Amino acid sequence: MTHPSEMTVRTARQAIKSGQLTSESLVRAYAERIEERDVDVKAWAYFNTDQAIAAAQASDKAGNKGPIGGIPVGVKDIIDTFDMPTEYGSPIFKGNQPSSDATCVALTRDAGGIIMGKTATTEFAHQFPAPTRNPHNTAHTPGGSSSGSGAGVASFMIPLAFGTQTGGSVIRPAAFCGVVGYKPTYGEFGLKGVKENALSCDTVGLYARSVDDIALFRGALLKSDTSPLAGIPLNGLKIGVCRSHAWDQADETTKNCIAEAASQLSKAGANVSDYDMSEAVTLCSKSAKRTRSYELRRSLAYEFANHYEKISKVCREGRPKDGESISHEQYREDLAQMAKSRLAFADETAGYDFLITPSATGEAPKGLETTGNSAFNDIWTALHVPTATIPAFSGPNNLPIGLQVVGHYTQDQRMLEAAQSVAFALNIYEKAA
Amino acid sequence: MTHPSEMTVRTARQAIKSGQLTSESLVRAYAERIEERDVDVKAWAYFNTDQAIAAAQASDKAGNKGPIGGIPVGVKDIIDTFDMPTEYGSPIFKGNQPSSDATCVALTRDAGGIIMGKTATTEFAHQFPAPTRNPHNTAHTPGGSSSGSGAGVASFMIPLAFGTQTGGSVIRPAAFCGVVGYKPTYGEFGLKGVKENALSCDTVGLYARSVDDIALFRGALLKSDTSPLAGIPLNGLKIGVCRSHAWDQADETTKNCIAEAASQLSKAGANVSDYDMSEAVTLCSKSAKRTRSYELRRSLAYEFANHYEKISKVCREGRPKDGESISHEQYREDLAQMAKSRLAFADETAGYDFLITPSATGEAPKGLETTGNSAFNDIWTALHVPTATIPAFSGPNNLPIGLQVVGHYTQDQRMLEAAQSVAFALNIYEKAA
Repeated sequence: MTHPSEMTVRTARQAIKSGQLTSESLVRAYAERIEERDVDVKAWAYFNTDQAIAAAQASDKAGNKGPIGGIPVGVKDIIDTFDMPTEYGSPIFKGNQPSSDATCVALTRDAGGIIMGKTATTEFAHQFPAPTRNPHNTAHTPGGSSSGSGAGVASFMIPLAFGTQTGGSVIRPAAFCGVVGYKPTYGEFGLKGVKENALSCDTVGLYARSVDDIALFRGALLKSDTSPLAGIPLNGLKIGVCRSHAWDQADETTKNCIAEAASQLSKAGANVSDYDMSEAVTLCSKSAKRTRSYELRRSLAYEFANHYEKISKVCREGRPKDGESISHEQYREDLAQMAKSRLAFADETAGYDFLITPSATGEAPKGLETTGNSAFNDIWTALHVPTATIPAFSGPNNLPIGLQVVGHYTQDQRMLEAAQSVAFALNIYEKAA
Repeated sequence: MTHPSEMTVRTARQAIKSGQLTSESLVRAYAERIEERDVDVKAWAYFNTDQAIAAAQASDKAGNKGPIGGIPVGVKDIIDTFDMPTEYGSPIFKGNQPSSDATCVALTRDAGGIIMGKTATTEFAHQFPAPTRNPHNTAHTPGGSSSGSGAGVASFMIPLAFGTQTGGSVIRPAAFCGVVGYKPTYGEFGLKGVKENALSCDTVGLYARSVDDIALFRGALLKSDTSPLAGIPLNGLKIGVCRSHAWDQADETTKNCIAEAASQLSKAGANVSDYDMSEAVTLCSKSAKRTRSYELRRSLAYEFANHYEKISKVCREGRPKDGESISHEQYREDLAQMAKSRLAFADETAGYDFLITPSATGEAPKGLETTGNSAFNDIWTALHVPTATIPAFSGPNNLPIGLQVVGHYTQDQRMLEAAQSVAFALNIYEKAA
């Protein structure tokens, strides 16, 4: 049998159901990995072995009910848990104990998941980095803001995790760490108990090591379909290659990866052509940038008023500061522009089954001072459409490079099926094995 | 000098600025009213005289800075305060102490406001009533869910207060208690720190005793215009009378009040005509009903899983239960329908300056078992457009009847100017004096 920590969630779940594996042994296997690896990777803001094992034992005793019964899940530490501290990556909230679970955490427990611990986050899911390092090369950033979730799943310390994305905070760490990241349609899993960053973009997202495990996790949370993801035949599908307004920021390797992906998908029978974003859509990007600044300053009003000295310089001088000079009228205009851009995007992509685009500008950069560039993520978050990154390629430093699949608004299941088909066409699972 | 508790906020603020009044004396005046009246009205979930006076003294000492410097504000108890308990109207959260302020509370303090205390709310801002009674007749409901905020402002225990509206929870209590209630464009003051009920409709709203005080409070929170509200000349304006899909539920008095308002506005020179909502707009109502159920069940996932026995029967068997049988696919279809209805509404009302419509089906009903019917509120909340109710009329039981003014999406300031003009045309301030 594969080491439990390297099983897919679907396999582990089958093993638990058939009595070959207990939740306790699965959690212990992951806890061992954490013991081994976390000293270098630093993916955890809070992990208590005894607490995780006790939850697994209770689950075993109760029969591991639910579609992810007995499976451990990591929770980004800007998401509230009633039984574990939640510090939002900030010294202001040292030891903070929320009185209830966030919606996505409660839905996880309803589905039988074991909350393994809290994964490291940048401060308030903004830019000041977590201590986390890239498991493929600890001199490199894992990306942010969901740094611990990306790195934790990549280093086999956890099979599933929650992140959040306001700019590029789910997709970028997934791409940099070489796992699958899923940024749903806006609103998919609710926001209750998630520290608000910028309300009009904040999205709870998921991490796993395969697209199918993402689909299983998503279906479990939504109490909907959790059957194995079939994928869709690529033959005859219309796929748009979207270089987007950020293309100039992509490095040569990334540009070549997109060309390679397009070529492979063509060979698989898809009808691949360029999708050039109109001005009406790209305008969304500038409006979203201002909006995220205005809204972040607003959601940090308490911290700025009461704990200014405990806020990092990066945050004091970052988006919140930009937000101070944005008027409410400008903010409203920007929200209106974003709404128009969403409609324009739906119109002009109606003929495509899905799009492909870079997940990031390149490999994870060296150094831990910043978490990288979200140029290839911001616009999709603001457009509210579902995207996933798959670990399709690697770069000159032998670090992962993701390929991002973009779907239509609310068509998340279809987008995941597409991502699954792309993953098969590019042989990513064979490469990983 | 008028008794401080009966001053408008603008007058009190002028008196504070000119040194005629201290914040302490204003807070003491309101505290006396609370002492006198709250034994009957029961508007407060938490009020600590010493704490409120200490905050006022600190404000006096610091020069009462900010556009509402030194003015007391009541906060509905589903909104977090870092220095006062927040119980969400539920025994599950007895004594719960949040670690930070909600955005709207932090913005209030930034603007110089004194947080006076926490006002009573129905359980989770759903249907199980608060102990609050209507100050005009304590045998009648004050409306809900922002029961304490409406009743507190009406009984001169507080000049300004926050409520929240997901269905009709700001406008209805304001109408029943005879004060001005303002339900902004969706998203106006952020949602951080507000107990999530139904994310796609939840809106923080304001209470005051005049439209001008609402505009002052709003401008202070948004760091925008706080100059006296001029109103707009009604002569030649196009006003739509919207009976809406709920007209059959309005009682005769309410129907007559709408006719009377239309007639008075015509006399003032406005071009008043019927606006009949299309099917494309009214469809929003059914979709919103399902959406609120689905989302409320989701946001109460923690409470249902961990504290079922402490949830009221009304809540267990109310919207959350309905929500359990709604599929994620249905939910997504309903969100899409609501988005379409918003566009249809914008199109078909583009020719109107504003609309008038009932605030409620009639006077506040007798009894405290329910908080009344939100038939005339739900759709405006779901359409995300700004509305205000003004205490324009009274009914057969000598209880207040409101008139609701509806504006265009994001045109909140313009809507408040319209409401001010309507208030003058109907002589509501003269009647109140």
